[in-house]
Amino acid sequence: MKTAITPTRAENFNEWYQNLIVAADLAESSPVRGCMTIKPYGWAIWELMRAQMDERIKAAGVQNANFPLLIPIEYFNKEAEHVAGFAKECAVVTHHRLKMIDGRLQPDPDSKLAEPYVIRPTSETIIGEAMSRWVKSYRDLPLKLNQWVNVMRWEMRPRMFLRTSEFNWQEGHNVFATHDDANADARKMHQVYGEYMRNVLAIPCIMGEKTPEERFAGADHTYTVEQIMQDGKALQAGTSHDLGQHFAKSCNIQYLGSDGQLAYAWTTSWGTSTRMMGGLFMTHSDDDGLVLPPAIAPYQVVIIPITKGEIDDAMKSYTENLAKQLTDAGIRVFVDDSDMRAPDKMWKWIKRGVPLRVEVGNRELESGVVSMTRRDLGKDSREFVPLAMFANVVAEKLTTIQSDMYAAAEARNREMIHNVETLSEITAAFDAGKTGFFRIKYAKTQTPEFDALMEKYKVTRRCLDDADPTYVFVAKSY
Amino acid sequence: MKTAITPTRAENFNEWYQNLIVAADLAESSPVRGCMTIKPYGWAIWELMRAQMDERIKAAGVQNANFPLLIPIEYFNKEAEHVAGFAKECAVVTHHRLKMIDGRLQPDPDSKLAEPYVIRPTSETIIGEAMSRWVKSYRDLPLKLNQWVNVMRWEMRPRMFLRTSEFNWQEGHNVFATHDDANADARKMHQVYGEYMRNVLAIPCIMGEKTPEERFAGADHTYTVEQIMQDGKALQAGTSHDLGQHFAKSCNIQYLGSDGQLAYAWTTSWGTSTRMMGGLFMTHSDDDGLVLPPAIAPYQVVIIPITKGEIDDAMKSYTENLAKQLTDAGIRVFVDDSDMRAPDKMWKWIKRGVPLRVEVGNRELESGVVSMTRRDLGKDSREFVPLAMFANVVAEKLTTIQSDMYAAAEARNREMIHNVETLSEITAAFDAGKTGFFRIKYAKTQTPEFDALMEKYKVTRRCLDDADPTYVFVAKSY
Repeated sequence: MKTAITPTRAENFNEWYQNLIVAADLAESSPVRGCMTIKPYGWAIWELMRAQMDERIKAAGVQNANFPLLIPIEYFNKEAEHVAGFAKECAVVTHHRLKMIDGRLQPDPDSKLAEPYVIRPTSETIIGEAMSRWVKSYRDLPLKLNQWVNVMRWEMRPRMFLRTSEFNWQEGHNVFATHDDANADARKMHQVYGEYMRNVLAIPCIMGEKTPEERFAGADHTYTVEQIMQDGKALQAGTSHDLGQHFAKSCNIQYLGSDGQLAYAWTTSWGTSTRMMGGLFMTHSDDDGLVLPPAIAPYQVVIIPITKGEIDDAMKSYTENLAKQLTDAGIRVFVDDSDMRAPDKMWKWIKRGVPLRVEVGNRELESGVVSMTRRDLGKDSREFVPLAMFANVVAEKLTTIQSDMYAAAEARNREMIHNVETLSEITAAFDAGKTGFFRIKYAKTQTPEFDALMEKYKVTRRCLDDADPTYVFVAKSY
Repeated sequence: MKTAITPTRAENFNEWYQNLIVAADLAESSPVRGCMTIKPYGWAIWELMRAQMDERIKAAGVQNANFPLLIPIEYFNKEAEHVAGFAKECAVVTHHRLKMIDGRLQPDPDSKLAEPYVIRPTSETIIGEAMSRWVKSYRDLPLKLNQWVNVMRWEMRPRMFLRTSEFNWQEGHNVFATHDDANADARKMHQVYGEYMRNVLAIPCIMGEKTPEERFAGADHTYTVEQIMQDGKALQAGTSHDLGQHFAKSCNIQYLGSDGQLAYAWTTSWGTSTRMMGGLFMTHSDDDGLVLPPAIAPYQVVIIPITKGEIDDAMKSYTENLAKQLTDAGIRVFVDDSDMRAPDKMWKWIKRGVPLRVEVGNRELESGVVSMTRRDLGKDSREFVPLAMFANVVAEKLTTIQSDMYAAAEARNREMIHNVETLSEITAAFDAGKTGFFRIKYAKTQTPEFDALMEKYKVTRRCLDDADPTYVFVAKSY
């Protein structure tokens, strides 16, 4: 059977993913090494994702703010452990002016900065500096801040949405009076992320804590939301860190307690990024293109007039009326009355993953019925609905699609999670071409044999299992 | 009379402005030269401003996208005229890694980039590059793109919100098949900006075109929205440029016409930024702090329980009930039940410019009335309203405050605009300590005498008058 995307997922998952991005018109590589341009359709998805995450962040009592893009290099000098963790590959600003030299614009040697700046790879240090001034007494706590910004970590092996030098994210930074409060907050944001993935992105997640070997540099505890892609690889989709007093001490965040004593505060940080879009695309899409959950679909419904030649007035007013009914019901709808051929339109919107496709031919128009096809189930799901029931049926179907997509991903996950007791079961599984998450006693991975297995199969410990933290999940990952 | 902000506007407008920013907790200087941190209250205002601008941009048929932060230096080499205009003072990225050398993190010499990157001061060149690939035929036109991003222009004399090295803005970039279409678009976005300033920010604007001397580098026409601050200085709050074929040619944006001929396209660009916040603050605030138009006030109403000691249950449920009535009516409300003293709370929210202040003491509680005071009119505007009418009266008052604030700014503008016939009238006015906008025949400013006047009084031509483009406005500016 011919598919809209070649190769198929089964043939070559990585290439399929690259071609999916192109076919759905989501993004493209940019002339800047490791950076991508997010095209309008991709960005519209991100805006919907961002709005729904932002709502949850605000409901958690967090306020948005905006801190500088650049961080003085000396801040990283104070934070040796943090930097050793991940921040060495970053963009360094050394000059503040261009000058025409030998007929070419170049950094003006006279504009060399005494102290270079780094484009933020994350903002713990600069937000910590502000918090050290903003927090004075226990009355100022908790202080909960978040920012939606771009960050930069120089990537040698970029991959669209999953790993790019520049990416967009939200980074939350909270301060508390006690470690209990901070730890509870990190766990709370972990749950917020899990709920968001399930209910907005329709992605069931493995909820767990990173092992000491895998946790964020400078964190006491790192909680992670791990997703299982269709090829069995893991995607880390959101982490929240209990940072203990690590940053409070290095940034000097102290508060005067109700007892009159000065004490160091306790901090958390937590983030999700455009990387979630990669997880979304690799979880739900198929060999014909994107499949979007209605909650974040820029158009939840597309209406396609099927005509030979020009769209006449009767058809125009009929489709406009259909669209109006949906708009009035708060449903995002698009009428494709462009001059493309009808089959081309149909494939365009299949590739872009619009959840529900409504095709209107003259027959439908005359008989007062509407045909609708679900993207997630394909052409066999086509149904004819009387005009009078149109908006209600669409609203119901969108709800059903959202929950069916979650259920389908969950069923696949169950197939992908393998409970094992020995490392050799993992080795045998990989040798047999099996993929997925292997759940095993954590203690079994604290061995030289596991180190060798990690090296050979390029796998890592994803996280301890929240349900029983003596178990760990092992998988290949993005 | 004691004021919350000292010095007052009359005593020292610039210092008053700086202290206003602090008193209303809007922003602060950051450790990064020329950059500021926008604090939660300031950012909440920006989020509301941004949402309402974004709505208008989308209604104009524009799609949001996201282009890279960094621009290859060679792109600026192609754009000599553009760069000469404004882009030389910018942040230059020359290395992509830090290294510990002599016990300090420094740019790793081995990571020096063969071609440095510039942090975008604006994105015409990199968006133009994408458009040259995305536009193929007349069917692809118009193509209308916008992005909400941070940009950077190294500032030697930074000023909060008005001129900072990093700032947040929206930059729109549209492509058309004809010059007429492009020019109409630049004029349309000019009108969108003007309508936004009037109806959202309650700021009447001078609408005009920049003179050839003042227009954007590379533009055929630059339309501008100029605001008159309370000290009579001008603030350029939004510009839209008809770029002719300047960028289409340098970026090679060509399209195949319906006639089968390849032709260069015509482009526009248009932008507004966090600078608008400076204009908002300097237009409406007074000697007691911020005064916010309801349309962009994070809290449109603050409810302050007036009690001696702790807030009791009766008061708590009374104020919560008031808040619920407003929330149900879609009004943004905050109940300040913190343990600050009541007068301190009152001043806190006066300084932050909340449009309507509701104070509830035991007397109000018992008699079932609510007292409310308008921020823009001060304590003499205090009124008692029966509980049953509360939500309706608040909604009405918010509408009235929004239009009254516009009317007050307009009345002040009328006093600030001086029609003159000769340059010596301008000289005499400035010598007499007069401020404001001077409207004079444009031809009179195309003289060596005017050049001397500009130099001596640090004034510029703000724009030609849309109503009669043979006249120009002359003023000092931010």
